[in-house]
Amino acid sequence: MTSTFGKNIVTTIFGESHGHGIGVVIDGLPAGQRIDLEELSAFLMRRAPGQSAYTTERKEQDEPVFLSGILDGVLTGSPLSAVIYNKDQRSKDYSNLRDMPRPSHADWNAHVKYKGHMDMRGGGPFSGRITAPLSIAGGIAKQILKSRGIYVGAHLAEVAGIPDTCWDKVHLTEEDLRIPGQKDFPTLSEDAAAEIKSAIQRARDEQNSVGGIIECAAIGLPQGLGSPNYGGVESRLSHVLFSVPAVRGVSFGTGFPATRMTGRDHNDEYQIVDGQVRTVTNHAGGVVGGITNGMPLIFQVAIKPTSSIGLPQQSFSIAEMVEKTLEVVGRHDPCIAVRAVPVIEAACALVLLDLMEDENGFRSNQK
Amino acid sequence: MTSTFGKNIVTTIFGESHGHGIGVVIDGLPAGQRIDLEELSAFLMRRAPGQSAYTTERKEQDEPVFLSGILDGVLTGSPLSAVIYNKDQRSKDYSNLRDMPRPSHADWNAHVKYKGHMDMRGGGPFSGRITAPLSIAGGIAKQILKSRGIYVGAHLAEVAGIPDTCWDKVHLTEEDLRIPGQKDFPTLSEDAAAEIKSAIQRARDEQNSVGGIIECAAIGLPQGLGSPNYGGVESRLSHVLFSVPAVRGVSFGTGFPATRMTGRDHNDEYQIVDGQVRTVTNHAGGVVGGITNGMPLIFQVAIKPTSSIGLPQQSFSIAEMVEKTLEVVGRHDPCIAVRAVPVIEAACALVLLDLMEDENGFRSNQK
Amino acid sequence: MTSTFGKNIVTTIFGESHGHGIGVVIDGLPAGQRIDLEELSAFLMRRAPGQSAYTTERKEQDEPVFLSGILDGVLTGSPLSAVIYNKDQRSKDYSNLRDMPRPSHADWNAHVKYKGHMDMRGGGPFSGRITAPLSIAGGIAKQILKSRGIYVGAHLAEVAGIPDTCWDKVHLTEEDLRIPGQKDFPTLSEDAAAEIKSAIQRARDEQNSVGGIIECAAIGLPQGLGSPNYGGVESRLSHVLFSVPAVRGVSFGTGFPATRMTGRDHNDEYQIVDGQVRTVTNHAGGVVGGITNGMPLIFQVAIKPTSSIGLPQQSFSIAEMVEKTLEVVGRHDPCIAVRAVPVIEAACALVLLDLMEDENGFRSNQK
Amino acid sequence: MTSTFGKNIVTTIFGESHGHGIGVVIDGLPAGQRIDLEELSAFLMRRAPGQSAYTTERKEQDEPVFLSGILDGVLTGSPLSAVIYNKDQRSKDYSNLRDMPRPSHADWNAHVKYKGHMDMRGGGPFSGRITAPLSIAGGIAKQILKSRGIYVGAHLAEVAGIPDTCWDKVHLTEEDLRIPGQKDFPTLSEDAAAEIKSAIQRARDEQNSVGGIIECAAIGLPQGLGSPNYGGVESRLSHVLFSVPAVRGVSFGTGFPATRMTGRDHNDEYQIVDGQVRTVTNHAGGVVGGITNGMPLIFQVAIKPTSSIGLPQQSFSIAEMVEKTLEVVGRHDPCIAVRAVPVIEAACALVLLDLMEDENGFRSNQK
Repeated sequence: MTSTFGKNIVTTIFGESHGHGIGVVIDGLPAGQRIDLEELSAFLMRRAPGQSAYTTERKEQDEPVFLSGILDGVLTGSPLSAVIYNKDQRSKDYSNLRDMPRPSHADWNAHVKYKGHMDMRGGGPFSGRITAPLSIAGGIAKQILKSRGIYVGAHLAEVAGIPDTCWDKVHLTEEDLRIPGQKDFPTLSEDAAAEIKSAIQRARDEQNSVGGIIECAAIGLPQGLGSPNYGGVESRLSHVLFSVPAVRGVSFGTGFPATRMTGRDHNDEYQIVDGQVRTVTNHAGGVVGGITNGMPLIFQVAIKPTSSIGLPQQSFSIAEMVEKTLEVVGRHDPCIAVRAVPVIEAACALVLLDLMEDENGFRSNQK
Repeated sequence: MTSTFGKNIVTTIFGESHGHGIGVVIDGLPAGQRIDLEELSAFLMRRAPGQSAYTTERKEQDEPVFLSGILDGVLTGSPLSAVIYNKDQRSKDYSNLRDMPRPSHADWNAHVKYKGHMDMRGGGPFSGRITAPLSIAGGIAKQILKSRGIYVGAHLAEVAGIPDTCWDKVHLTEEDLRIPGQKDFPTLSEDAAAEIKSAIQRARDEQNSVGGIIECAAIGLPQGLGSPNYGGVESRLSHVLFSVPAVRGVSFGTGFPATRMTGRDHNDEYQIVDGQVRTVTNHAGGVVGGITNGMPLIFQVAIKPTSSIGLPQQSFSIAEMVEKTLEVVGRHDPCIAVRAVPVIEAACALVLLDLMEDENGFRSNQK
Repeated sequence: MTSTFGKNIVTTIFGESHGHGIGVVIDGLPAGQRIDLEELSAFLMRRAPGQSAYTTERKEQDEPVFLSGILDGVLTGSPLSAVIYNKDQRSKDYSNLRDMPRPSHADWNAHVKYKGHMDMRGGGPFSGRITAPLSIAGGIAKQILKSRGIYVGAHLAEVAGIPDTCWDKVHLTEEDLRIPGQKDFPTLSEDAAAEIKSAIQRARDEQNSVGGIIECAAIGLPQGLGSPNYGGVESRLSHVLFSVPAVRGVSFGTGFPATRMTGRDHNDEYQIVDGQVRTVTNHAGGVVGGITNGMPLIFQVAIKPTSSIGLPQQSFSIAEMVEKTLEVVGRHDPCIAVRAVPVIEAACALVLLDLMEDENGFRSNQK
Repeated sequence: MTSTFGKNIVTTIFGESHGHGIGVVIDGLPAGQRIDLEELSAFLMRRAPGQSAYTTERKEQDEPVFLSGILDGVLTGSPLSAVIYNKDQRSKDYSNLRDMPRPSHADWNAHVKYKGHMDMRGGGPFSGRITAPLSIAGGIAKQILKSRGIYVGAHLAEVAGIPDTCWDKVHLTEEDLRIPGQKDFPTLSEDAAAEIKSAIQRARDEQNSVGGIIECAAIGLPQGLGSPNYGGVESRLSHVLFSVPAVRGVSFGTGFPATRMTGRDHNDEYQIVDGQVRTVTNHAGGVVGGITNGMPLIFQVAIKPTSSIGLPQQSFSIAEMVEKTLEVVGRHDPCIAVRAVPVIEAACALVLLDLMEDENGFRSNQK
């Protein structure tokens, strides 16, 4: 595998869904930074299962235990390491899956690639549970960014085709970004929330699932983060975003709909506002030539409908190599996009913090 | 910047649009592999400007000069280096741009990040011209993959909202992949080609531009390339794809529309065909859990409308910090997506070859 | 910091001497490989303190707890993670060090670099204790190499100027490599052991310390590991060897004395033995042009005398910025080179295993 | 191969001794920095062959042609690329080497690893000639460091067992570092120079060769560069130093002789000089715990006697697999250590500049 990413802030995750523990090591965090562990717990709760009727009923205890890198709530400069010990595993739920791969799950790929040795209970290292360590790292990154005036937030832009209201890509505020995380359901519009909840409930009742689109943004970024060629903001973000299970697409600014616009309509003309260079529109989503331009950074992430569904599906027996019908029993999220919202924020915050460290070097060089 | 990518096949590009030359170094290519230089030239011609009425009229001579790594058409095992010397530069075309940044171009970001020292004639290192070295590397990778039974191709899936016909995601053949590259216009359907050409001509006449979507695919890949966490096929591909100028989105399989499907409809059920495990559908686009599953690899790339347009736009004077109207004179592609088709193939081939080298290690380990 | 190394086998270590735990994550280990945990424990005991009169009297419990990557003694393919929980800390021993940096220790550097926030009890992340996680990883790598016919061993070539007998650089055997690890003291010669032990005891009695040289070797390596430029065996080994605290020099083959030889005497002439190409001598230490040549790999590591000594030394008060005399109370190794022997083996094994994975790729390419 | 190194300043080299050209790409250099190209040429002349009777008689024209990254002598921020075109090749000199590998050369390893496809004329990518591109990069790095008050220099500390005088490890000055580069022979002592020249002349007359030790130092470094674990100054330097052909050992500060000292004698006690913390001695060579401590950085590099000698040696025929006597005809350096002096400076400067970029980040974080 490749379980490490980042250039200046280097994050390594480990663990399998049903092993003894999952965890994260984060290298390069700034010594002396205070971390609010209650705020971190609250952030992790947004990802945790069992929080509402619209997610899985399993209750995981995602409380991280810190082994190094933090003393009395202050980062020491050593690699920070945190472990979440696995408790509520119910591995029997998945016992019949061993011989019959679940469609659109990694079961069959894992069997072939790891010659049948991978511990695939609960999805093994492919499980959405592995986003918990990423969220720990990202939650810490969010706090560090906040202390520098940079804010990250995300909401459900669409579920099952039902759209949430949109953010104003030009005038986005810290308050706007904070709202979805404070609600019991991460949309901007209450009406959209109600409609989406119904659609999810319907999918659950039918033992089916639905997908969605997450929109994520960051404000307060300096102009100049990222670079052309292979160090662009989009390259570095997408690399990590696509590591999140169920992500099938990533786009920036106006995204795929931009392909149906003309250059005149899509180009972001310049204006001078209070002596500052701003763009009139923000179709670029805050990044041009791989470099942040000081406007809000905005991107979208497509989340497929959860692959784990209760409905019968055609699979096959690995032992017998004949087609068979699979019926999965267990507790699943009928819409994984809901819990993925803070995970996308986490990935975004980690990449931005990593880019900021390059930026420091860049600024010092240039002056 | 970050001008190097890859783990086993390491590609480094260099050069500015109007400098003395642009080029590429590729490390890790297999010794003894024969490269057909005529086939490579033909591949590079697909990207070169001035080939048709639907691209810019500039004529670049993109013929690479090889400095090392190849002897009598056979790779030696040394890093292969190739340079394209710049000839037709006409830098005066861009002379009035120095003080007035072009909207949705990197001019202003480059000015701030590189303190005014960047050689931005012709777009400098942000120019689409920098995709020529990437195409050299990718053209070589394509040939190596072909010698291993792996084929890569791409077509214009949509331009200005006009769709091309679709590939059959399950039964895609080598012949299918070859067709768009052999035509004068890279679509599958002749009707679509005609309609798209008209739309591009109209944009040119209006001094405007249009965007499009490129669909790229690869067949013949073994099951098992890539890995979960940060080494997934999607992560590694998107990282390079987003480095191509004008790319605003990347999606796999069914892409963003997958978010409006239910799990039952989106899941790819298994079947046994001639003793081989295959999926009935291919919404996953050939990659599950970050790992290839042996089905065709399929992804989409959103290309924004060309930022360079002749219409007057609102910009500002850097020296005076006041808003001004900019009128860009020069020769531009009214639809950069056309010439980007082989570039996307190149990026895809390079990443797949890099993944194949991991694969070799994995296979040897496992047996 | 930079706590991760390796290209194919990626090792990440974490922890501070007196934190809650120290540990390691190893990514890329081959699925299906059986690990003998008792053999691993025996290997780790060679590094553990408190084993003999010639090392520190502290007793650490270095037993690793595995959180992921191994199931019933077999590697799963997931990143393997292991933690050693800290128990016997006695942090008061070091309490007076806070304001007075110990000469030739990292105390003062850590204070400045990490602005006083680093948890430096017991040496923090600079402690020799951090070699325990490296040893876990290396002990596993040693077993994997052994299963492929590759053997790694090391001995104390010299302590306090007292030389051990030499290995035959040309005819080195598995048995030769195994001997030092099976003894209570890691020399080849019993006489040397006795004399060295006396020298160490004398240093301890005088509250002083002594240094030494470790010689490490590997046999059974295929020809062709490594490469010229920046992927050479020497580059990759030295990078990790110099991360081991107290290492001040690394040399290969005949090492620094080679600089006093002539080319005629130093060159390793070829001979054909049983149809195999061998060299008559092995001044190169098994690596030429950065590439293994099939002869035994041999290198030397210089270990400085332990910096922690009981004798009074001139230091200064950070708070007052005036010179002061420091007297360190505590339990220290009078010769850290003794316990470093298995650590050097561990580092060697990890780097070789990483190189072997490149080799697999290379071999598959070439055929 | 692995032809790229560095984290923030990323250097890629390419080329074979007798190909069309060799070159270098350096990414991450600061925009706006002025480079004195005459000073760079003078630096490269120190490495160039044919400069004196004590090096090879071949005349290479090592004048670099810059393709990108520099405009009117000022760095633009783009990757800087430079090519040295090969002219004086005389490849016939080496024509009889094809079937008979030269002892202690990479010929045989290259044949096996690259299946006979490598262009090995003149040593191919294993040639000392490949240090020319590294020297271009390092010469630029030296100038950038100098503009920040950091000076790098090296001298021949010993050749054929004949020692040069020593640098004062504590009070080293810029002037001291500049001297060896300004002389026609890079020693500190004139007497040593005379004696060493005689020894080299004798080796040349006997068609033999001699080795030597290079001592390199840097002053003006801030405290705090580097880190524990795998980012230490020694790790990062040795990784690049061992890539220079003929290097067999690297040591820091007092080096291997430190292993025969006691802790009391080796420890560097602290003193306060003019309000600054300094050490009384500098056995550490300016780096403790992987981190610079503000004292002069000092290290030694062991260079083996040149492998290319005219004396008859035992080799074998690859085609026939029988032992044969080889007599190499051609022009060789009887002591490659002489020309390696500026190469070691170049490697040192590049690594230090790379570390400085980390440092910038660290400093900004901490304040």
